[in-house]
Amino acid sequence: MYILRINMTDQTYSLADVPKAYKTLAGRALTSTMVSDEVPPLCHALGPSNKLIFSSGITSGTAAPTSARVSVGGKSPLTGGIKEANAGSSWAADLSVMGIRALVVEGQPKGKGKFWGVNITWDGKPKVEFFDATQHTGKVLPDIFPPIYEKYGDKVSICSIGVAGEFGYGNSGIVFNDQSKRPTRYAGRGGLGAVMGSKGLKFIVLNRAGAPGVEIVDKALFEEGRKKMIDALRTHAITKPKGALNSFGTAVLINILNEAGGLPTRNFSSGRFEGAPRIAGEAIFDSNKNRLNKELYNHACSPGCIIQCSNTVYDENGQEITSCVEYESDWSLGANCGIDKLDKIAELNALCNAYGLDTIETGTTLAVAMEAGVVPFGDADGAIRLLHEMGKGTPLGRILGAGTATTGRVYGVTRVPVVKGQSMPAYEPRAIKGIGITYATTTMGADHTAGYTIAPEILGVMGKQDPLSNEGKAGLSRAFQATTAFIDSSGHCLFIAFAILDIASGYQGMIDECNGVLGTQWTADDVLKYGSDTLKKERAFNEAAGIGKEADRMPEFMKTEPLPPHNQVFDVPDEALDSVFGEL
Amino acid sequence: MYILRINMTDQTYSLADVPKAYKTLAGRALTSTMVSDEVPPLCHALGPSNKLIFSSGITSGTAAPTSARVSVGGKSPLTGGIKEANAGSSWAADLSVMGIRALVVEGQPKGKGKFWGVNITWDGKPKVEFFDATQHTGKVLPDIFPPIYEKYGDKVSICSIGVAGEFGYGNSGIVFNDQSKRPTRYAGRGGLGAVMGSKGLKFIVLNRAGAPGVEIVDKALFEEGRKKMIDALRTHAITKPKGALNSFGTAVLINILNEAGGLPTRNFSSGRFEGAPRIAGEAIFDSNKNRLNKELYNHACSPGCIIQCSNTVYDENGQEITSCVEYESDWSLGANCGIDKLDKIAELNALCNAYGLDTIETGTTLAVAMEAGVVPFGDADGAIRLLHEMGKGTPLGRILGAGTATTGRVYGVTRVPVVKGQSMPAYEPRAIKGIGITYATTTMGADHTAGYTIAPEILGVMGKQDPLSNEGKAGLSRAFQATTAFIDSSGHCLFIAFAILDIASGYQGMIDECNGVLGTQWTADDVLKYGSDTLKKERAFNEAAGIGKEADRMPEFMKTEPLPPHNQVFDVPDEALDSVFGEL
Repeated sequence: MYILRINMTDQTYSLADVPKAYKTLAGRALTSTMVSDEVPPLCHALGPSNKLIFSSGITSGTAAPTSARVSVGGKSPLTGGIKEANAGSSWAADLSVMGIRALVVEGQPKGKGKFWGVNITWDGKPKVEFFDATQHTGKVLPDIFPPIYEKYGDKVSICSIGVAGEFGYGNSGIVFNDQSKRPTRYAGRGGLGAVMGSKGLKFIVLNRAGAPGVEIVDKALFEEGRKKMIDALRTHAITKPKGALNSFGTAVLINILNEAGGLPTRNFSSGRFEGAPRIAGEAIFDSNKNRLNKELYNHACSPGCIIQCSNTVYDENGQEITSCVEYESDWSLGANCGIDKLDKIAELNALCNAYGLDTIETGTTLAVAMEAGVVPFGDADGAIRLLHEMGKGTPLGRILGAGTATTGRVYGVTRVPVVKGQSMPAYEPRAIKGIGITYATTTMGADHTAGYTIAPEILGVMGKQDPLSNEGKAGLSRAFQATTAFIDSSGHCLFIAFAILDIASGYQGMIDECNGVLGTQWTADDVLKYGSDTLKKERAFNEAAGIGKEADRMPEFMKTEPLPPHNQVFDVPDEALDSVFGEL
Repeated sequence: MYILRINMTDQTYSLADVPKAYKTLAGRALTSTMVSDEVPPLCHALGPSNKLIFSSGITSGTAAPTSARVSVGGKSPLTGGIKEANAGSSWAADLSVMGIRALVVEGQPKGKGKFWGVNITWDGKPKVEFFDATQHTGKVLPDIFPPIYEKYGDKVSICSIGVAGEFGYGNSGIVFNDQSKRPTRYAGRGGLGAVMGSKGLKFIVLNRAGAPGVEIVDKALFEEGRKKMIDALRTHAITKPKGALNSFGTAVLINILNEAGGLPTRNFSSGRFEGAPRIAGEAIFDSNKNRLNKELYNHACSPGCIIQCSNTVYDENGQEITSCVEYESDWSLGANCGIDKLDKIAELNALCNAYGLDTIETGTTLAVAMEAGVVPFGDADGAIRLLHEMGKGTPLGRILGAGTATTGRVYGVTRVPVVKGQSMPAYEPRAIKGIGITYATTTMGADHTAGYTIAPEILGVMGKQDPLSNEGKAGLSRAFQATTAFIDSSGHCLFIAFAILDIASGYQGMIDECNGVLGTQWTADDVLKYGSDTLKKERAFNEAAGIGKEADRMPEFMKTEPLPPHNQVFDVPDEALDSVFGEL
């Protein structure tokens, strides 16, 4: 396969074979390795030395179920450390099908204001054509995807940024098309949209027509693995058809977390939200049923996904407001802002998608602004106004666009739920200690997907563990972080974890699929080592960037303010936090 | 002497004798030691765990010349590290005369919006009375000092904060009265005004009436030292009456640095400013002469200063615009913003004083905003408008009030001249390598006063050293940093350094004065060790706060963009930077 380098300094490109050292690396393992190898840790994240690296996973572009994930890596303008964010999209599959193991965006044009797109086609090998995209800047994303499809054809996949990325916001994602050509699937966290924007790159269009597809070394083994994986996903209560995710989407977690006292509410001042039932996944299902007069099950965000967890929210006239409202978005724009109006949350979600913002960072930023008194908690229309300020790039919008930590700094707020400059997602560390350990220690800044201990602590996957206990949680987080780093490299969506951690044959299926594609003979131990090696590279990058163990700490307020209803503080000792990477 | 603790949680105070371990500590040595001993390095700088510590120097309050400096310490909201900023004022002398070795402000009131003042009088020992100061908030400082003098009498000294501190700005200083009761003498750097504001403290009034004065253990030795110091200061070309500082103020450096190609211009994009002669100290002297029809020499900022370097700038009607315009302010608000109109610079300076802002951080922030296109370079009236935004606390004003690094982040600017979050002062590291080493390595964030190698590199003090050479500069910076940490503890203004580094008897005079006051037998080696010990404590605090050697680095643009006219980059190797503290 190829490493395709796009140089934005002079709008040229080059193609090279994947070097031997990278032969088994893909997805997060490859983006993090290349960032470690090529990006100076102390460079300015928006300067010419940073790189933006795309790599789909090992099984992406194959028939493996739920495998169309693409990792995006670089130095984060939000955290100052290494970043990997991933999304599910046909774009991921197409990149692999076109033989591109990594797409590396380098350099920076002189001067500002001009933006380019690249159209990548297959001509015996990948071929890159640059086009002027400046006319598409300053607009909302739903208005600029259609002309690209019109120009390059219905079959292409599109990666882009919104105005948030053009403005250089620390809170700016990279967006990919969903199955209905909407610009809605985000590699959202860590401000990588601004890195793409700093390079003057607005679109990466992939046209896979004629491309040969992904080579599978051991087809029989791959097929065996694929079947095991499908069986597991179709059997498990969370991932099966008309199961929890397919019926209620990830927002099924609202009531569950609220019940557990771990739903951060009004800027992390409580773990329970009185409005939870009104914004939960069940409420979305019921609202759609009432408004559409039929039961609507969820759809896939990307080709080949059999979990199909993406909802669509319809207004009272049966018109789509947005697709999809994930649990973390529902929480951040809802409970965390004290907002209990589902339609307004969907509208806020749609605005994030239109402007190119990470929904998690947006909601936590709004809540800090609410804490500062910019608008009151619960003021949905005020929140919508603030989103438009972000979209316009007003001074207030730029403050918010810089993210939660900067908004806290600008307004002198002390209750700012961030680690390493990135805001915490939808799970309260004071009520769920393991996820707090993940937030504190992951190389990514606070991130639930980096080591989702919610699975055992709340959902009982692999057996239920007491969320309020610290016992064994450092080891739990470490195991989840290492396993996740592998899953993020396999091409699979993290949601396979529910099934494959409970159903051993599913886990073996994932390994078989990867061994089938690559011709490797990995065991479960090798998988953990692959993940651990990835984490170690990320950690070394961060340390060289000045982000050491002192950054693996919760903000002070979580250690001093007890959280209702459990009235606990985050009391995991520093030694336990240090053991996560210390014993990796 | 006493440690006076003021608890803002419940508006109480307590008095204790200075513990044995602190017996010879004063000024910076004491504030940095107490911050190290008492402030959790990872606390929120604006939260209840931070402390604000005032301590005047060893000789403050005595007849030692130029010795009325007070150090203010705490965890900096700007850098996240330890901070000491000092100012010259009668307040410094009064604190010592009242037997208060350290005044420690602790805790934080519940709720926001209410501000207190404390009035400290002598009643056999220091006595503290709290008063409601809320009525004085939201106003410019020149309007609120007079009513305090009216209430507490003409003889008091006043410490306060402006609206910048009330708003929690990272760029907010702590202000003390000058000799004409103006609120103009700033412990400016690092945002300590916001720490005072976060504690709901608006005024610290000192009324020394009846206080016993500073005990001097060996009066003869002290007197001997004092005479040596006076002789040195009165002899040296820089510090003597009608010498460089007394005639032209610190702004005498404008032409000198411009000539050396080391005057950062238009946000550090050149080392030479075509407008330099129009804003130089000589121009201020000439302008005043023309407008007042007499030669005006400078005055002392604080009692007992015989250098007397503070200028006053008069407008064309002979009315005072401000006092004083220091070199660094003249540069930051002038050359660095491309502004060459002296009266406008004086007006900007006056606005900084009125709102409670650090002039250095303000000018560097304006320049980054100019780089972002908020107003054009050279637009003096635009800059004045931006200052008023800061004073009003608008969203744009809050961005700028958060300082240079945050403004760069909010606007996605890559040329941001900061180290550890604090902006660089008026000397270009690419043209003067030693000062760059100080900027990079000092515990304070970029700070010229932490190790003023400009003395040998530009002014030829102790023999001229080539500013463009790296040779021996790490050792030079280390020696200056350690010596400075002592001077900052002695109570003397750093400007004694010009004289005492060139005139050996002056240096001995400083030591004799301190030994005289304390009854110690310090040698020159002890002085260096005292300074080094202070630096080590500061360094350890920073490391525990997550600020290690990776933070001892110049921003990337200084290593990649050659600076006219010398067309050099900052090329001091990391190893040399690391040797500054490595070999301390």
